[in-house]
Amino acid sequence: MPHIELPEGLPGITGLLEYRQDTAQPIRELTQVLLRGPSTLSEGERELIATHVSSRNRCTFCTTAHTAAAALLLGDEAAADAVKQDIDAAPVSEKMKALLTIAGKVQEDGRKVTEDDVAEARRHGATDVEIHDTVLIAALFCLYNRYVDGLATITPEEPTYYETLAERIVHRGYMRPPGGYKEEHKYRPESRAS
Amino acid sequence: MPHIELPEGLPGITGLLEYRQDTAQPIRELTQVLLRGPSTLSEGERELIATHVSSRNRCTFCTTAHTAAAALLLGDEAAADAVKQDIDAAPVSEKMKALLTIAGKVQEDGRKVTEDDVAEARRHGATDVEIHDTVLIAALFCLYNRYVDGLATITPEEPTYYETLAERIVHRGYMRPPGGYKEEHKYRPESRAS
Repeated sequence: MPHIELPEGLPGITGLLEYRQDTAQPIRELTQVLLRGPSTLSEGERELIATHVSSRNRCTFCTTAHTAAAALLLGDEAAADAVKQDIDAAPVSEKMKALLTIAGKVQEDGRKVTEDDVAEARRHGATDVEIHDTVLIAALFCLYNRYVDGLATITPEEPTYYETLAERIVHRGYMRPPGGYKEEHKYRPESRAS
Repeated sequence: MPHIELPEGLPGITGLLEYRQDTAQPIRELTQVLLRGPSTLSEGERELIATHVSSRNRCTFCTTAHTAAAALLLGDEAAADAVKQDIDAAPVSEKMKALLTIAGKVQEDGRKVTEDDVAEARRHGATDVEIHDTVLIAALFCLYNRYVDGLATITPEEPTYYETLAERIVHRGYMRPPGGYKEEHKYRPESRAS
């Protein structure tokens, strides 16, 4: 049960973003520009960074949602599943391996990112903006993971919930659905069980 | 030396917020509404949460800046210094002690916040919104601290730098200075030493 009374039918981050919409709006905008705005990193690659950090923070809601989004964007689940286990063995570019390594260190403590980590990313073609964005995406998901888990939000168990959520964030992005969440956006564990 | 090329004369978070202004704008807006918007927590109390979390993340730039801001808002340095050492002994209300305890757990891992932690805060009068905002402020400073340290930004050593920065965030808030940073906002270690 969440630590505070949240709008019903909206698990994980979705209920929090409805609870206080004036703080939600800039969080949504930051995520939209960083994960969906113009970038030399693909949307799938950026979702892999979100997945990796959420997995390391053991935030089940965010990890499952962004694994599903990355899989949808990349066309298969192998990369998203693999980065959670072992970056070196994951089917991603050498540049992405170096950036995911930086993201993993940011997740622990920003001070752990070394000049060698950054040089390794550059050796594989990473630009300043890509390094910047990797650090900021990792930092943003450290915010999200703590927000979602710090208030003990609901974590659905049904994979279908996350597939629907991933469809929405892949095709509609991170802004609030026009007019807010409607009945079809709501999570109804009972009706699914029937 | 920062890991990427940042605007000169702007240490810590200030250079990062100039480097990519489209991501900076929502970060600034979130901070402004959360730390300066209407709230039953005073601005000084909210700065104490930022100080406590930054201190636990060992982010020197953010800790020093928000200690100075909290001291300015609260009228003395005792509370800001004390919460970094020992919350229980700090000259703050019992409600603030309970909220700072929650913030400290969010800093480690959101999943560490227990029902007992939340019940303790409520026992001392904390509302749902105050509990929500405490968690989100703590999560936001986990973002800031990682952003600042993950890119190895410059950390000035001169206390006067942070006093000037605190004056600005206390009296002007967290939005970008109108027209951007001017010469008087820039950090010039040489000229200070002369």
